[in-house]
Amino acid sequence: MTSTWNDRYAARIRTVTSSAIRDLLNVTAQPDVISFAGGLPAPELFPVEVTLDATARVLEQVGPAALQYGPTEGVMRLRTWVAEQASLEGEAVTADQVLITTGSQQALDLLAKAFVDDGARVVVEDPSYVGALQALALMRPRFVTVASDEDGPVPDALAERLGGDPALAYLMPSFQNPTGLTMPEARRAELAQVIAAHGTPVVEDDPYGEIWFDAPAAPSLRSRVPERVIGLGTFSKTLAPGFRLGWVIAPAEVIGTLAQAKQAADLHTSTFNQYVALAMVESGMLSGHLKVLRRVYEERRDAMLDAMQDAFPSSARWLRPSGGMFVWVRLPAGMDSAEVLADAMRRERVAFVPGAAFHACGGGGNTFRLNFTNAEPDVIRDGIARLGAVLRRHLPD
Amino acid sequence: MTSTWNDRYAARIRTVTSSAIRDLLNVTAQPDVISFAGGLPAPELFPVEVTLDATARVLEQVGPAALQYGPTEGVMRLRTWVAEQASLEGEAVTADQVLITTGSQQALDLLAKAFVDDGARVVVEDPSYVGALQALALMRPRFVTVASDEDGPVPDALAERLGGDPALAYLMPSFQNPTGLTMPEARRAELAQVIAAHGTPVVEDDPYGEIWFDAPAAPSLRSRVPERVIGLGTFSKTLAPGFRLGWVIAPAEVIGTLAQAKQAADLHTSTFNQYVALAMVESGMLSGHLKVLRRVYEERRDAMLDAMQDAFPSSARWLRPSGGMFVWVRLPAGMDSAEVLADAMRRERVAFVPGAAFHACGGGGNTFRLNFTNAEPDVIRDGIARLGAVLRRHLPD
Repeated sequence: MTSTWNDRYAARIRTVTSSAIRDLLNVTAQPDVISFAGGLPAPELFPVEVTLDATARVLEQVGPAALQYGPTEGVMRLRTWVAEQASLEGEAVTADQVLITTGSQQALDLLAKAFVDDGARVVVEDPSYVGALQALALMRPRFVTVASDEDGPVPDALAERLGGDPALAYLMPSFQNPTGLTMPEARRAELAQVIAAHGTPVVEDDPYGEIWFDAPAAPSLRSRVPERVIGLGTFSKTLAPGFRLGWVIAPAEVIGTLAQAKQAADLHTSTFNQYVALAMVESGMLSGHLKVLRRVYEERRDAMLDAMQDAFPSSARWLRPSGGMFVWVRLPAGMDSAEVLADAMRRERVAFVPGAAFHACGGGGNTFRLNFTNAEPDVIRDGIARLGAVLRRHLPD
Repeated sequence: MTSTWNDRYAARIRTVTSSAIRDLLNVTAQPDVISFAGGLPAPELFPVEVTLDATARVLEQVGPAALQYGPTEGVMRLRTWVAEQASLEGEAVTADQVLITTGSQQALDLLAKAFVDDGARVVVEDPSYVGALQALALMRPRFVTVASDEDGPVPDALAERLGGDPALAYLMPSFQNPTGLTMPEARRAELAQVIAAHGTPVVEDDPYGEIWFDAPAAPSLRSRVPERVIGLGTFSKTLAPGFRLGWVIAPAEVIGTLAQAKQAADLHTSTFNQYVALAMVESGMLSGHLKVLRRVYEERRDAMLDAMQDAFPSSARWLRPSGGMFVWVRLPAGMDSAEVLADAMRRERVAFVPGAAFHACGGGGNTFRLNFTNAEPDVIRDGIARLGAVLRRHLPD
């Protein structure tokens, strides 16, 4: 049977780059592979007991309302909780400035729908979170990248980009995916001035903010320019990704517009999950739980960095992340990390994500991303040693 | 402060009709209002205990994997369950033909993204489900309606529409929202022939198929033309809407394309909810639970129809639904049901949804929709009596 479906698809779906990473993650999920490819939290740390206790409490106290249709904007008490947390950073945030989303991935979809016309310019970091690039790409923008140094986007470069009045900009200032970099206080202050001086809405994605090791990240761009920066948050890295719970913080007027897009997208986020997560955080478990996550993940980061120091050839360079879940590696120019991956999978059954997909406008073929949160230190050491052996076949020391 | 946000929005979001129904549902949710406006199931019938038991079982047996990221297509055992249920209708359906979605509303969003280019023609019933019209409208189609009689779309009329090779058609053959009408066997057979003879993918939305009173609906269009009809299902009316769990059944190739759109939309549907719902249906509770739902909802339908017979002026006409959740009312031509609603809210604190929003190409100003599942018979009788008094002020007997 020859397929006739391809001719029937809309142009936007035909332009989506194939699900190379999804295919990769399926392959690397085989049990004999040591995979540094995914962006998975450590499942052994998930608060399983707390989840069951919270569920029992919700079904007893909230009852059937926890299983009914709910408001598109989210359960009011959860919106209030998010607003209160955000208010700790500075200016008060109110519940009507919060939209609960089905993971922060959905927030990206809604923002793309609300702000990105076909052909509109969207400013992204280079590299940037691949899931954001995918969500934005469906609305067919022209991506433009902003030059960065190790402190994040260069202020003059961002000013030049925003001077062209693009439709949207997308940044991840804290423990970025994929680089692990964090913008320090001084850079944030400079970028806030640039953003405030221009009209472009700036999306500040912050999935990893709570996963810091050395010190918390500096206050958000949103808290500095609340009238222009749209903040995204999530429970995926703090409670569990399986709940698919995230949020948007924005001016109330923008929340109203995003809620219209959300109503068409899935009516509302699971009422059940919202109430369960709310009961979990209201139990006061979060601060102790975050301490555990930070300690365990820091140990795994250190295991990975130490092992890389021992095993990788000196011509490979990497960044030391002070939080988050990833180490970003750069091979000498001209190297192809996808080829290295093929070799690593064949010879050593070890996997990572090649960097090209994180680059909206091409390049990055010599880079790759390693995740350190989803394996125990011994496994990390073993996998990095194996990967080092493969790299030494491809690289001079 | 004057708003500058409006100028920044994408064209697609500016064309979304304001959330008139959402605003209406907020107003009518006031405790002193008898509301027939929403499309809510009866919360007192939700399987609260079964949910808690299932959650405990999932967290014990599946453990942390139930809280982790999962595959975009859905949990394999749940996809298999959906496939097995669908296979009961005829030709075998396999798990790779199933995509789990965040409610069937999300399926509409994904289908719009995958099939509807700006300006593409989309065929819909007149009236049609307003949430489908909203999801499709975001991708900026030109809607065309198909003429219907009380058995559903007229085959020659559908053939004429599909002859123009539109991008997509959207139908709800069983206990339609808003009309309550069901296409009988003979009409389905005729429509299946028409669909098979043309190239347009046809979406068959079936949220209410299990909610039948007199007899089950005839087999689906999908089971008759599986290569062309994309079936949508949901747990919202059988287990609980708060889980936000639905599914798409389509050729595996289409599922692959929709999964790409879904990955960008929310990565995947809540793993937690998928496992909990799976544990619920695997416990065998569904068939007994559906018997209760059918009995209680049938009693409420009868209470509403009997009360309408007594209270409504004879110039109002309505359809007797043999399942689902709604009664559709037609007032004499020239009447404005939105004006009647305003009067009903002011005088009698009783609410319904005016019909105009269900009409993709205008018209229907003299129609309205009543929900009968969300109130007990005594409340229904009281509300219909009050509404009848209002109607008699506007209408000759």
